[in-house]
Amino acid sequence: MPLLIRHLPFLQPTVFCTCQALQLPRAAPGNPPAPRRGPSPISSYSTRRSSPVKQPNSAQKMASVSHPDQVNKTTHPFERQAIETLLLRRFFFCPAFEIYGGVKGLYDYGPPGAALQANILDLWRKHFIIEEEMLEVDTTIMTLSDVLKTSGHVDRFTDWMVRDLKTNEVYRADHLVEGVLQARIKADAEARGHALKPVVEDPTQKKKKKVVQTVTQILPDGKAEEYGTVLAQIDNFGGKELSELIRKEGIMAPDTGNEVSEPVEFNLMFETQIGPTGQIHGYLRPETAQGHFVNFNRLLEFNNGRVPFASAQIGRSFRNEISPKQGLLRVREFTMAEIEHYVDPQDKAHDRFDSVKHVEMQFLPKGVQESGKTDLTTTTIGQAVEEGMVDNMTLGYFIARIYLFLTKIGIDPKRLRFRQHMANEMAHYAADCWDAEILNSYGWIECVGCADRSAYDLTVHANRTQQKMVVRKALDEVHVYDKLVINLEKKTFGPMFKKDAKALEEGLLKLTQEKTSEAQKALTEKGEYLFQGPNGQEFKIPSSVMSIKSVTVREQVREFVPNVIEPSFGIGRILYSLLEHSYWARAEDVNRGVLSLPPSVAPVKVLIVPLSNNAELKPLSKQVSNQLRSLGIASRVDDSGASIGKRYARNDELGTPYGVTIDFASVKNGTITLRERDTTFQVIGKVEQVVTLLVELCSGRLEWAEAATRLPAYTGEQEL
Amino acid sequence: MPLLIRHLPFLQPTVFCTCQALQLPRAAPGNPPAPRRGPSPISSYSTRRSSPVKQPNSAQKMASVSHPDQVNKTTHPFERQAIETLLLRRFFFCPAFEIYGGVKGLYDYGPPGAALQANILDLWRKHFIIEEEMLEVDTTIMTLSDVLKTSGHVDRFTDWMVRDLKTNEVYRADHLVEGVLQARIKADAEARGHALKPVVEDPTQKKKKKVVQTVTQILPDGKAEEYGTVLAQIDNFGGKELSELIRKEGIMAPDTGNEVSEPVEFNLMFETQIGPTGQIHGYLRPETAQGHFVNFNRLLEFNNGRVPFASAQIGRSFRNEISPKQGLLRVREFTMAEIEHYVDPQDKAHDRFDSVKHVEMQFLPKGVQESGKTDLTTTTIGQAVEEGMVDNMTLGYFIARIYLFLTKIGIDPKRLRFRQHMANEMAHYAADCWDAEILNSYGWIECVGCADRSAYDLTVHANRTQQKMVVRKALDEVHVYDKLVINLEKKTFGPMFKKDAKALEEGLLKLTQEKTSEAQKALTEKGEYLFQGPNGQEFKIPSSVMSIKSVTVREQVREFVPNVIEPSFGIGRILYSLLEHSYWARAEDVNRGVLSLPPSVAPVKVLIVPLSNNAELKPLSKQVSNQLRSLGIASRVDDSGASIGKRYARNDELGTPYGVTIDFASVKNGTITLRERDTTFQVIGKVEQVVTLLVELCSGRLEWAEAATRLPAYTGEQEL
Repeated sequence: MPLLIRHLPFLQPTVFCTCQALQLPRAAPGNPPAPRRGPSPISSYSTRRSSPVKQPNSAQKMASVSHPDQVNKTTHPFERQAIETLLLRRFFFCPAFEIYGGVKGLYDYGPPGAALQANILDLWRKHFIIEEEMLEVDTTIMTLSDVLKTSGHVDRFTDWMVRDLKTNEVYRADHLVEGVLQARIKADAEARGHALKPVVEDPTQKKKKKVVQTVTQILPDGKAEEYGTVLAQIDNFGGKELSELIRKEGIMAPDTGNEVSEPVEFNLMFETQIGPTGQIHGYLRPETAQGHFVNFNRLLEFNNGRVPFASAQIGRSFRNEISPKQGLLRVREFTMAEIEHYVDPQDKAHDRFDSVKHVEMQFLPKGVQESGKTDLTTTTIGQAVEEGMVDNMTLGYFIARIYLFLTKIGIDPKRLRFRQHMANEMAHYAADCWDAEILNSYGWIECVGCADRSAYDLTVHANRTQQKMVVRKALDEVHVYDKLVINLEKKTFGPMFKKDAKALEEGLLKLTQEKTSEAQKALTEKGEYLFQGPNGQEFKIPSSVMSIKSVTVREQVREFVPNVIEPSFGIGRILYSLLEHSYWARAEDVNRGVLSLPPSVAPVKVLIVPLSNNAELKPLSKQVSNQLRSLGIASRVDDSGASIGKRYARNDELGTPYGVTIDFASVKNGTITLRERDTTFQVIGKVEQVVTLLVELCSGRLEWAEAATRLPAYTGEQEL
Repeated sequence: MPLLIRHLPFLQPTVFCTCQALQLPRAAPGNPPAPRRGPSPISSYSTRRSSPVKQPNSAQKMASVSHPDQVNKTTHPFERQAIETLLLRRFFFCPAFEIYGGVKGLYDYGPPGAALQANILDLWRKHFIIEEEMLEVDTTIMTLSDVLKTSGHVDRFTDWMVRDLKTNEVYRADHLVEGVLQARIKADAEARGHALKPVVEDPTQKKKKKVVQTVTQILPDGKAEEYGTVLAQIDNFGGKELSELIRKEGIMAPDTGNEVSEPVEFNLMFETQIGPTGQIHGYLRPETAQGHFVNFNRLLEFNNGRVPFASAQIGRSFRNEISPKQGLLRVREFTMAEIEHYVDPQDKAHDRFDSVKHVEMQFLPKGVQESGKTDLTTTTIGQAVEEGMVDNMTLGYFIARIYLFLTKIGIDPKRLRFRQHMANEMAHYAADCWDAEILNSYGWIECVGCADRSAYDLTVHANRTQQKMVVRKALDEVHVYDKLVINLEKKTFGPMFKKDAKALEEGLLKLTQEKTSEAQKALTEKGEYLFQGPNGQEFKIPSSVMSIKSVTVREQVREFVPNVIEPSFGIGRILYSLLEHSYWARAEDVNRGVLSLPPSVAPVKVLIVPLSNNAELKPLSKQVSNQLRSLGIASRVDDSGASIGKRYARNDELGTPYGVTIDFASVKNGTITLRERDTTFQVIGKVEQVVTLLVELCSGRLEWAEAATRLPAYTGEQEL
């Protein structure tokens, strides 16, 4: 049920994508366009309670009007401001060091946010690490600079930035250019009076962006198309290209209309010194992946030398974003969950692929994007792999598992797509790459990357450290073949070439079989072989010191560098998208927000509500609470002085799926009511009956519609 | 059963203590003495397999000689080198970026280490956060410098260091002085031929430390005692005192005998820049606590404005140690679990204190230490609070809960003590502070701190940010009292004092009741009041512009800054101590190490061992594995080619408590064997029977001695 889309028609997909959480070092391709410059999500935090929740008079009133399985969630259009106010008021998260004024891109999670995150990570651990028997590691955040030099991050993990020459305000250069060109295209189209392709925009924004130099301009003919081409390629632009564009197109700082500086490169890693001598440089890791790779040999040994296997890690990573502005979607410190699955490059089949091949989802393959379109293809992963759209079974297996995980925690499958990287987005070594993108009010946001990184990572670390990082696999049958082998007469070869002898010998031994065959022919036919040394020097090698013969080789073991398939999850982005997908307001009151989080991830599963603060009700509250805790169900007693309605409304905002009310009649009769959050429908039963229902509901084995038929409805007229 | 102590008589407690993980900013008091400079734990990592494990021939052989509940764990003396080799070989942890040469003080956890840590944290979360209904938060590691300036870390979280003037090797100054003075005391005592009080020393060390200038010296009479006094006070020494000592006592670099530099102060926080402008300074947090405090107002609101309540956080912290040398005990990046319990300063009772008052443990109160002794007092926490040894019930409650947690995960209660901070160790504002210290081969190591920090933290942040951080509590009865109030005739007062009027008014309104009463008297008797302004200037204020009268105040609400009780856990130190407490070698072979981890924290609970790699055994292995997984029991199938004995020996080293063997007869009869790790005793039963036993054993509801009587012993002679 695509609630959001129904009310946000302009949210139709465009080709934007984001990549913060997830990818290899490169000039930050695929980041989302700069957010419209209006009130940022952070600025909205200044109001602690902008829209107080209106409460009904009593739980009874709510009970009497609800239905067991009917609820209208689409009465009110989605408003980002409303959910952001709710999330801050209920302390899902807030700007870090808020009382010190905060710092852009840093957020703290309060109790419900931390619990929601912990529940998502717990399900992630079960879904991936436990079910797939992955090897979990926990490596350091502080990373030696050499490691990140090898991985390419020190040289290439950069963005280009420019500065407003008068105010010194800093912009990411590509975001600045994108924003201005998009605004000009839009203004041009409006001025020409024809409709534009929809553009992702912040629907909650009150003030329109002030783009000083462009808003009323009609572009010269063909210019809009030229800009379109530039926008499609901008991820590949370096400083030089961005600089030329800024000068040529007269792009100014959007907030002031001032000139901006030349683009300068800015490395996105936080740098520091390890130890007191100043000689050891460290960076905070920008991803957890390198911590897996440097430990590959120990992991392989732990796995008895066999592939395939996967390592997994959940942990913090850091990116010193130039000017983060999109709330939890672009932050400087974030939790990732990364899997590195090591696989034989000659065998990327997956032995559990059959178990997922029927899973159907929305794909946006590269061909469609390259033709300038964004039409989604809905098909099964089995079909996608069979047709070759997805490169191999292992990659396909993980794409399906990612889909199953995201929808299990509550992501709307209609607002989830897998977008393939286009050729120009992908690193040269990558075999294939798909991003799980989730549609929220900021657009389609990359939340999980799933790349086949070939043998790149292990190869570069092995080369740099001179440590072999290979798998040795016994061959099913002995591989027998003939091979040409060079033999040098050391006694005469050495004196003949003196100081060059060693380099020459090394060069000869490195010859390919093809070259060796040529050498053999030359020695036989001409009695000498003309060899070109590494410095271009030529050596005549007579057959008296060198001979070549064919030998039969019997190979029993194949040695190879495994390929790596890397599913990489940005947890904060998933969590925020999930909150948006879960949010709606009650038909009767736009200020009564509800978060329909599934019980599996809801911070608290059951709210226990004693009717009043009377001491008589405490023992039964305590008993129910203990009973639920011993069954592993997170509950909370709310014995604050507020009315029952207020307490339920607060917990609707917290996403608490169930509530039980304890009354004086409960103490007398041993009965309690059970309320479901979305429908507000209530049933009544003995404590044991209600607890039994809750166990089944919270485990996901029972749906509410069914549960509501098992006990009598509570209309507020019976005695509790 | 104090296995370790029995074999390491020199491990008798001395007054050393450590404080890395846990305390407030100060000149790093209470750190342990510098480790003896021999082969460091890290250097031992260079050998990948220094002592290969000898394996028995078969599981049957082991089965036939074992007993259901008898095992001798004390045959071989404890050797640190042996456990360190095991922990590295089985990849519990290893130096981070090992293939790049590593960096001191940074370690990665491999699969068993990561799983052990996750299990410890999971139990911690249940024991504290869930059982106590704490509010979990997850705040940023990257911290704005202002926050840590307020907390005192920027100015005072430092150690003094010196440099070898020739080699530039760096030492922590206090550790250097301690090490040299201790060595001199020892050498003196040996030369004089009388026994020394035992000193903590590394028993695995082969080469004796080379202390160039002291080893053969007899000290002048009285000098050893003088050194003893210095050592007792060294935690309070600053740079000047350390410098004087180094010069006066001729202390040189211990490894070279070279002179050392003047001590310089080194801040232990990693510093970095946030954002691209270079204007925002950040530090990696040295503790998680500040992240709780800055969010206090939101937490209080979330808790409906009421105290007591607690916030809790699990996360990484960082300390840029000068020269870390003790493996996991002194690291630059570590996982902490911290609780901040907010309590009314007038009411530090705890409503669940009764549930723990009977818990008995070992205490080392400050009085004993101040008299130069280390005798432990064994008593209940109830008694300790009643006698006033522990300051208050809430602090006592947490001390008992810490004790229960540590012993539940497998810490030996005989090697656990609570040491009170002495007056000179404790911050001026702290009311009382106890460290849970665990004895391992490095000595008594501080693993948990438990401090009553009074209102310090909230007060300093409130003062700095001008945000009130208070609790408002309705008083049981209205507090009625009289108060003198000053009234100024603004119309005449202003013109009379002109530019001084404002400062004068502020000064008058700040007068205490006592001073106001004096002013009232002066106005009545002399018609004027002589007021001294802030700059010493005197003002005559006539009764024409100022009057004072008594009003009756009715106070219904008390406003106060809550006090904070802070239990703070260094997870890495606890984990390492637990591994040492769990380690022993089988009587028959010193190289057959076992880690007797309790099932609750063991990385894997059950090893499933198919007798061979034959395909016929796979379905049953899979079935048992699925059955255990669905019951939430972590298991692992080991179908590697190694012998059963080798596979069990490997899992003894991994601490896997149970193993089941699957044979061809299993497939035929549906029976499997169950082996217990410590005793190696085996029983045989139907799959369902064994699974039922495993559920009870892993949940801790059943002991092995009892379980072993429920099924027939397997002697290797029956058919599986």
